[in-house]
Amino acid sequence: MNKQRRGDGSLRHLITLEDLTRAELDALLEHAQRYVCASGARPPMNRALDGMTIGNLFTEPSTRTRVSFELAARRLGAEVINLEVQLSSRAKGETMLDTIHTLESLHFDGFVIRDSEPGVVAHVAANVAAHVSVFSAGEAHVSHPTQGLLDALTVRQHKGARFEALCIAIVGDIRHSRVARSAYEAFTALGVGELRLVAPPGLMPEAGLFPAGRRYATPEQGLMGADVVMMLRIQKERMAQAEIPDGDQYFARYGLSAARLRLARPDAIVMHPQPMNRGVEIDSAVADGPQSVIRDQVRNGVAVRMAVLETVLRPRPVRA
Amino acid sequence: MNKQRRGDGSLRHLITLEDLTRAELDALLEHAQRYVCASGARPPMNRALDGMTIGNLFTEPSTRTRVSFELAARRLGAEVINLEVQLSSRAKGETMLDTIHTLESLHFDGFVIRDSEPGVVAHVAANVAAHVSVFSAGEAHVSHPTQGLLDALTVRQHKGARFEALCIAIVGDIRHSRVARSAYEAFTALGVGELRLVAPPGLMPEAGLFPAGRRYATPEQGLMGADVVMMLRIQKERMAQAEIPDGDQYFARYGLSAARLRLARPDAIVMHPQPMNRGVEIDSAVADGPQSVIRDQVRNGVAVRMAVLETVLRPRPVRA
Amino acid sequence: MNKQRRGDGSLRHLITLEDLTRAELDALLEHAQRYVCASGARPPMNRALDGMTIGNLFTEPSTRTRVSFELAARRLGAEVINLEVQLSSRAKGETMLDTIHTLESLHFDGFVIRDSEPGVVAHVAANVAAHVSVFSAGEAHVSHPTQGLLDALTVRQHKGARFEALCIAIVGDIRHSRVARSAYEAFTALGVGELRLVAPPGLMPEAGLFPAGRRYATPEQGLMGADVVMMLRIQKERMAQAEIPDGDQYFARYGLSAARLRLARPDAIVMHPQPMNRGVEIDSAVADGPQSVIRDQVRNGVAVRMAVLETVLRPRPVRA
Repeated sequence: MNKQRRGDGSLRHLITLEDLTRAELDALLEHAQRYVCASGARPPMNRALDGMTIGNLFTEPSTRTRVSFELAARRLGAEVINLEVQLSSRAKGETMLDTIHTLESLHFDGFVIRDSEPGVVAHVAANVAAHVSVFSAGEAHVSHPTQGLLDALTVRQHKGARFEALCIAIVGDIRHSRVARSAYEAFTALGVGELRLVAPPGLMPEAGLFPAGRRYATPEQGLMGADVVMMLRIQKERMAQAEIPDGDQYFARYGLSAARLRLARPDAIVMHPQPMNRGVEIDSAVADGPQSVIRDQVRNGVAVRMAVLETVLRPRPVRA
Repeated sequence: MNKQRRGDGSLRHLITLEDLTRAELDALLEHAQRYVCASGARPPMNRALDGMTIGNLFTEPSTRTRVSFELAARRLGAEVINLEVQLSSRAKGETMLDTIHTLESLHFDGFVIRDSEPGVVAHVAANVAAHVSVFSAGEAHVSHPTQGLLDALTVRQHKGARFEALCIAIVGDIRHSRVARSAYEAFTALGVGELRLVAPPGLMPEAGLFPAGRRYATPEQGLMGADVVMMLRIQKERMAQAEIPDGDQYFARYGLSAARLRLARPDAIVMHPQPMNRGVEIDSAVADGPQSVIRDQVRNGVAVRMAVLETVLRPRPVRA
Repeated sequence: MNKQRRGDGSLRHLITLEDLTRAELDALLEHAQRYVCASGARPPMNRALDGMTIGNLFTEPSTRTRVSFELAARRLGAEVINLEVQLSSRAKGETMLDTIHTLESLHFDGFVIRDSEPGVVAHVAANVAAHVSVFSAGEAHVSHPTQGLLDALTVRQHKGARFEALCIAIVGDIRHSRVARSAYEAFTALGVGELRLVAPPGLMPEAGLFPAGRRYATPEQGLMGADVVMMLRIQKERMAQAEIPDGDQYFARYGLSAARLRLARPDAIVMHPQPMNRGVEIDSAVADGPQSVIRDQVRNGVAVRMAVLETVLRPRPVRA
């Protein structure tokens, strides 16, 4: 059947957002919202995952996402072990499964996996014992579901739950971005009114992908009247693909300056998944300005991961 | 006196199995059996080591053994700290002791040590303060006592406690294997009826070692009628020593295929300490087949380490 | 205002000892003393930091200090996460602050930072949210405040709280030592009667620094009648600066031998921040001899860090 659901339809893993319904997304976001707290306040904690052990398997470095998952699990009472294993021994697929089965025999309840190879997360999920859940923490350029959820939660907090009324512009290297894919899946399932893709030709997704998105070659067109401006990280090696020789030129043509931001609605919010290249895809004045909700995104990351862990590992959640 | 016992004869460290009596082994295995639980069940936990701090010092990489010890300690309520220290500064022995004394002053109750240099574990044990215990997690090619115990526990679970009635064949690179040494010590102390060593000449232990083992040059002879077939990992660089040029040839002559396994008793179990070289020392059909108990070995590893930690650190154990 | 104090004058961070009053130091040392326990005894624990999360950011390796802070925080009930971030991306200061703000949004209450670049710790402290505290675990050659406190606590335990009556000699590479700076600040604030600096010219601090210290070119002069002999680690590359070609020669001229120690008072104590170069700055017979309090320093390190964490994070401390 479905690669991430139990027989009864409930979520057994979280690998992708592509088959989540609006009702499921709404439930996850409301659940997460209960775990959001103000900066400086004591973060909410409970014992929902008491006695459980979560293993972090990150074969790509990621302090932010790894720590966010770790804090989420610990704040629900689970043990967390950082596993330094070479998961995807590319040559021999069996070796990877031996590693997983070994860990599973040590009584892990869940694995949080980040891997640069498409399909590894799903392959593990398809092969673990029935009591083990798998959580994607970023899979190649394919998906990053908890990032998609935290982006949706951030929009919801600032713009309300009526996504139909919103115009969201995703700007930058959409072609190679798992963040963009998962955000697209969340936003479309939530019924976003208008979704725009703003990128130079070399960074625009292939034809057929992101079918609900309207494509714009310049921010001048794409940002006009947007409620949400979601910037993506641009990597140096991609600029050549976009036929732009350097960071200054990229900024001149696609970077989010205060002037460009004025094309969007006056109450538009600015998002970025981080880490930022300040002065390349975004100006510091904007990143640190009053319309920026970038720090909210990070804060929401812990709340969303708490909700995901609890929803998947405890089908009847314990209240916070 | 004895390098791993207190004045009253009780175990203060676990460095080797070589002087453990059958009664001690039986007690440890029975203790461990109480901590075994089915896959997917909540693992047993208690607070036997409440307030204690265990330091992991692994100077050789080992996710499986390190995590197994870490989970065992945490499930008994101890804190675990992974210490990234260069333990055996080969040139200056004093530096190693300075490190150990420093850690000891931080109030560690136990050190779990893996080191590639023979004698380092015992050297640390001989020099730590009276309240500190040392646990070997694998010492050069010399010993791996908790692996020997988990192997014995696995045999006991499947074949019962009457070891006298059993024929166990250890197959592969016995010469360089700490796993084989500790298993040999456990099996002989437990009174195993017949112990066979099956290896090419270059991988057979030196004359005089493993005195209770009968030596066989081929699996065709050595597996005949065995109750337990314990395969060892073969390392590429050893094949030349065994005068076997590659993995395929090794498999053809010593690998455990389904056909060779049929030489053993029909209810024989197959063991492997992992990681496996599938297609070199063992065929995947056997590793994943009905006679394989390889995953049980991993699961038993946590239980055995819980029993060892509790026995050594709490001479009167708290019941689970 | 002051870089490490709140508006009410209380300590919000601990970056330096330079502005601590004698009353504050006395209070910290008395607080720490309550957390000291004998080797082998159960270390004191409480829940003073329950619900708090501390992040360790060490961009220079340091097992001893990192583990000491980690144990201190955990023994007060806090969660500790080791963050492997590249803090001081030297080229772009903004990136470092992005990292810090990201971590802060994950609800960290404190960061323990070691960095080889002067000013990084204070820069972070100046930019974190109001609810976050920063603890220096060693800043370039500039300061190492918890080391200074543990040195003061060790002196106090062995020589009593009347620092006016004491003569303390700091010997070795004072010029490049953050340990010496923080010890100097603690000792002078505590009113030490006589403070001596003993070093070859190339390792003596620049003129004007350590103004209260009397300078001695040789241990023969500098150790005479001292109550406390505080040795520093000498690094190979510094010997050339001191115009001393090798370790043997350094030992001959500046190393603490039993004979040289006899120049000090018969009840003088010997300290060293570790790691030691035995046979270079200190003889093993002295390091392990009856006057050595080197292991006490390590033990006191946990107690001092518990006191500092509690004083800063819980302005009204919970009693042990």
